[in-house]
Amino acid sequence: MQIIEHTFSRITAEQPIMTYCLAIKVNDGLVFASDSRTNAGVDYINTYSKMHTFTLPGDRVMVLLSSGNLATTQAVINALRRDLDEDAETNLGKVHYLFDAAQYIGRLSQRIQAEHATALLAHNISAEASFILGGQIRGQPLQLYLIYPEGNYISASDDTPFVQIGETKYGKPILDRVIRTATTLEDSARCALVSLDSTMRSNISVGPPVELLIYKKDTLGITQRLSLHNNTPLFISLQKSWNDGIRRAFSRLPRFDWEFPDPTK
Amino acid sequence: MQIIEHTFSRITAEQPIMTYCLAIKVNDGLVFASDSRTNAGVDYINTYSKMHTFTLPGDRVMVLLSSGNLATTQAVINALRRDLDEDAETNLGKVHYLFDAAQYIGRLSQRIQAEHATALLAHNISAEASFILGGQIRGQPLQLYLIYPEGNYISASDDTPFVQIGETKYGKPILDRVIRTATTLEDSARCALVSLDSTMRSNISVGPPVELLIYKKDTLGITQRLSLHNNTPLFISLQKSWNDGIRRAFSRLPRFDWEFPDPTK
Repeated sequence: MQIIEHTFSRITAEQPIMTYCLAIKVNDGLVFASDSRTNAGVDYINTYSKMHTFTLPGDRVMVLLSSGNLATTQAVINALRRDLDEDAETNLGKVHYLFDAAQYIGRLSQRIQAEHATALLAHNISAEASFILGGQIRGQPLQLYLIYPEGNYISASDDTPFVQIGETKYGKPILDRVIRTATTLEDSARCALVSLDSTMRSNISVGPPVELLIYKKDTLGITQRLSLHNNTPLFISLQKSWNDGIRRAFSRLPRFDWEFPDPTK
Repeated sequence: MQIIEHTFSRITAEQPIMTYCLAIKVNDGLVFASDSRTNAGVDYINTYSKMHTFTLPGDRVMVLLSSGNLATTQAVINALRRDLDEDAETNLGKVHYLFDAAQYIGRLSQRIQAEHATALLAHNISAEASFILGGQIRGQPLQLYLIYPEGNYISASDDTPFVQIGETKYGKPILDRVIRTATTLEDSARCALVSLDSTMRSNISVGPPVELLIYKKDTLGITQRLSLHNNTPLFISLQKSWNDGIRRAFSRLPRFDWEFPDPTK
């Protein structure tokens, strides 16, 4: 059991929305994607991973994405690690169901927020944090949860096979159009990248590198993990291809009846 | 001078975001678009026009889009009409500059909000309203303003040649990608419809009919005005063409290096 990419600095995010994370649950597996920008005012922008993985190969894979107050999310990650190290009564290696893990993380998040809420509120800073938790425990189906700042959680469904946290709206239309439970893992991953690209274009506080993780059902290990920077060839070609495709789609839209000649006829 | 499509019912919107209006300012003119759904809880959804036009053909054209508390926006429209009818010292027919009109509407909005704010606050209802005002007065350039609930206002710029109110985020990425000052009026109108379509797919509280108005620079009259319902052939074909185009663009995205065969090679 290991924790990858935990972070340790103590920056407090002043703005509530400074990130965009999403996860998709299709029949073949799970896709996770997140940006890496963290902000405590325009003069203090840094890059932190918001993707944390907990794996016990052959037994369980859990991926946690975080958004909100960075101090809260880091304290939650640290607490999860401490509980693992100390073999606490509840820890990510012991829980029998993924929803137990969701409940446990929600409880930790609530406790950590409460510790600092009064002091932070005096400076009008929110301690809130949201999480996406997805993965699989041996012998059980794929699971994907969104954990609210209040500690409760909801599951992705067949009708809405994705969850989002942070700056969610710019990148939602493409998910609504493309993602179904039958979508392949690779198409889901491409859709996640397009969703992030649209968000980064419309909100400068969401930025690269983009982290992408693919989990193929029943493998109980991480299938693919990529970190895409602005100069990563795949990311450049994907952004260009999408932009060209959108412009082509736009140029083919039907004309109004007063426009002549009508190039679609 | 006439007011078209003022509305009279007294429904108070309980949710703050229940509409989407946008306007685009390009070299050739202005485009305005709005949805028509108004909501005071899920069991009370109605259709009201959010597009109001004030024209003095040959002298001035002003188009006002509204979002927020319907009682506030209707009271503002009624006050604008009363000031015209009574030939008040300030009215839309007399103002010399469009920014005078923006300031006047902002002041009316503030006054009307203040009248009801205390009573509404007791029920946790916001009296706030936002407006988009665009148009042209003879001898002056095209103007486009966003009027905030606080009564102040900003102008569209060459860098950001569009303004939005209400549920703005779902429909922003396509505007960011397509709209430049050199975009034609018809392309701007198509982009506005796509932006509304994306919003309606992602937020059920934004709904048809969609109203679209095109103003060609220096004509000082309304160039085109359309009301697009779900069964309007143009709207159906535009939605289908866009959806097909998006799916085609998506299917052409580059493959990951582990995917074989690579159909793009």
